[in-house]
Amino acid sequence: MRRRLVKENRPKVILYGLGPIGISTGKILAQRQSIEIVSAIEIADDKAGKDLGELLGIKAARGITVSKTLGEAKNYGIADVVVHTTSSFVETVFPQLEEIISGGMNCVSSTEELFFPILKAPDATRKIDELAKKYGVTVVGTGVNPGFVMDTLPLFLTGVCERVDEVHIQRRVDASKRRLPLQKKVGATLDADEFYKRVETGTLGHIGLRESLQYLAVNLGWNLDDIEEQVDPVISEKDITTEYFHVKKGQVAGIKHIARGFTNGKAVLSLDLRMYVGAEKSFDRITIGGNPSLEIEVKQGTPGDIATASILANSVSLAMHADPGLINTKYPMWPHCEKL
Amino acid sequence: MRRRLVKENRPKVILYGLGPIGISTGKILAQRQSIEIVSAIEIADDKAGKDLGELLGIKAARGITVSKTLGEAKNYGIADVVVHTTSSFVETVFPQLEEIISGGMNCVSSTEELFFPILKAPDATRKIDELAKKYGVTVVGTGVNPGFVMDTLPLFLTGVCERVDEVHIQRRVDASKRRLPLQKKVGATLDADEFYKRVETGTLGHIGLRESLQYLAVNLGWNLDDIEEQVDPVISEKDITTEYFHVKKGQVAGIKHIARGFTNGKAVLSLDLRMYVGAEKSFDRITIGGNPSLEIEVKQGTPGDIATASILANSVSLAMHADPGLINTKYPMWPHCEKL
Repeated sequence: MRRRLVKENRPKVILYGLGPIGISTGKILAQRQSIEIVSAIEIADDKAGKDLGELLGIKAARGITVSKTLGEAKNYGIADVVVHTTSSFVETVFPQLEEIISGGMNCVSSTEELFFPILKAPDATRKIDELAKKYGVTVVGTGVNPGFVMDTLPLFLTGVCERVDEVHIQRRVDASKRRLPLQKKVGATLDADEFYKRVETGTLGHIGLRESLQYLAVNLGWNLDDIEEQVDPVISEKDITTEYFHVKKGQVAGIKHIARGFTNGKAVLSLDLRMYVGAEKSFDRITIGGNPSLEIEVKQGTPGDIATASILANSVSLAMHADPGLINTKYPMWPHCEKL
Repeated sequence: MRRRLVKENRPKVILYGLGPIGISTGKILAQRQSIEIVSAIEIADDKAGKDLGELLGIKAARGITVSKTLGEAKNYGIADVVVHTTSSFVETVFPQLEEIISGGMNCVSSTEELFFPILKAPDATRKIDELAKKYGVTVVGTGVNPGFVMDTLPLFLTGVCERVDEVHIQRRVDASKRRLPLQKKVGATLDADEFYKRVETGTLGHIGLRESLQYLAVNLGWNLDDIEEQVDPVISEKDITTEYFHVKKGQVAGIKHIARGFTNGKAVLSLDLRMYVGAEKSFDRITIGGNPSLEIEVKQGTPGDIATASILANSVSLAMHADPGLINTKYPMWPHCEKL
């Protein structure tokens, strides 16, 4: 099917999901004059039926009543792009994506697993990609991490390398400057036992680290023998007081989540993410071993909250311009080093 | 015209131009097992007629005799990608590109002006783009600078920004560690008068800085009121001895080339490139002012020589996968911030 042309220069956007990320992204989009938000979807009772402008705190978005489902939404199927922020997992979002794509709408999603789902969910990935091609729409899974710091940015940097032997990425986030939910999310104030229990039940840990690692390996043309993933607490070495609470010496200050990819027993890829209260500073550091070797630092790091909402908002144009299909199942459209 | 399919997995490459960059790129490509170099072109008498393997110093490339023109080359029109490294200027390379494209071959070119030629050479740009679409091939103009440090990398970084107000880029290259031609190219050992004379005749100065600036402005959606470009000598404050020669105190140590883009009297874009012997260290620094603001440093900088050859070699796959046309006349296929 041919891509539907946008009849005017103002892409029509539907917000699907009004959790913290959906709200932040909505705020950015509502302030972009060349984009028009035409509908919003949120199943939660405290938001459905409300006025979007009030939820976003932005006048320009007034007059749009939040619907419970996409099917009920005004402009269903007339919109150009759905900005989708409901869940981290491909399995959960699959029926939602089916509905969006079959409605003939492009989709930008914050679903972490959707950034590079081919290895974890090959069947769903192929179905999404085929369906998107059938309806002539583009599906973009993105965010700051996965989507930027530990995958696309390092791969972009390899564009100037003749040869890449290893890639190591460190991300340090001083959680004490972040919002309360993030401080809770990293497990601050827990004891170590409780921390590990929550890791086992899947309520602690960063989603998408494995996807970032696999995206790098596949696009560098590397066959990994093994992947190791490890989540541990960072134990506070002193008493720390944040805006919200106290972390005592010996309690959990936050999380250390590391993924490594091995070839011939050597960790050729490592993604080392630490988010905890009391981190001396935030930074992102990408080290590429090869020819040339490169070391890149993002001073102060890439601020997670605003960066995620921004890259989702900035992907609306990408979803309108890129070829139909699921975006990271295709060759990235910029030069990068690959083993050839 | 439909894109011609590559019948086997080994793209056939022609090297067009065997100057220092052509040779370096050829060395990389000759060592990539999944690429096959099928011809080489060089007009210079000391290379035409010679064996490519000997010129590259690589056995795998033996048996290919260097032709003087593309028309005479074996496999003309059968190759998938021409790696073109002949001149910095669009006007000079235009007939060469016409021949490559009309031969049905994709092209990766180091021509600096070709990185973003639409503003300087709009007619040639449109003709190249139209011709490439007619023949179903992709033309990529790239390099480390323009092509990476001061344009695509900063634009890539804006993908995580809600809003970009200004972008400032510094590149410092300690020329004393570089090859003799580069030390000469930056004007080392000249006196200031001679330096400015050479700038006037166009034999000194970095080509492509204006193109990098315009690429950033157009893709960020900014209308610049004015562009200023200034080339000055860096005067040595002490006697310096390199592997090749002595720079006395008061002589030119190298070049300072700055381009600025203004809106409402403010320099919202600045590209500040300094290459000189005796620079304390090499680095690239990208500062983005906006929300969030970001500061990124490439420690030791991106090494120019190997990086340029690498990005050319890495663009062979891009030229095979991207949609037909001239690459930077289209929307970049990754999220970036734009004024909307």
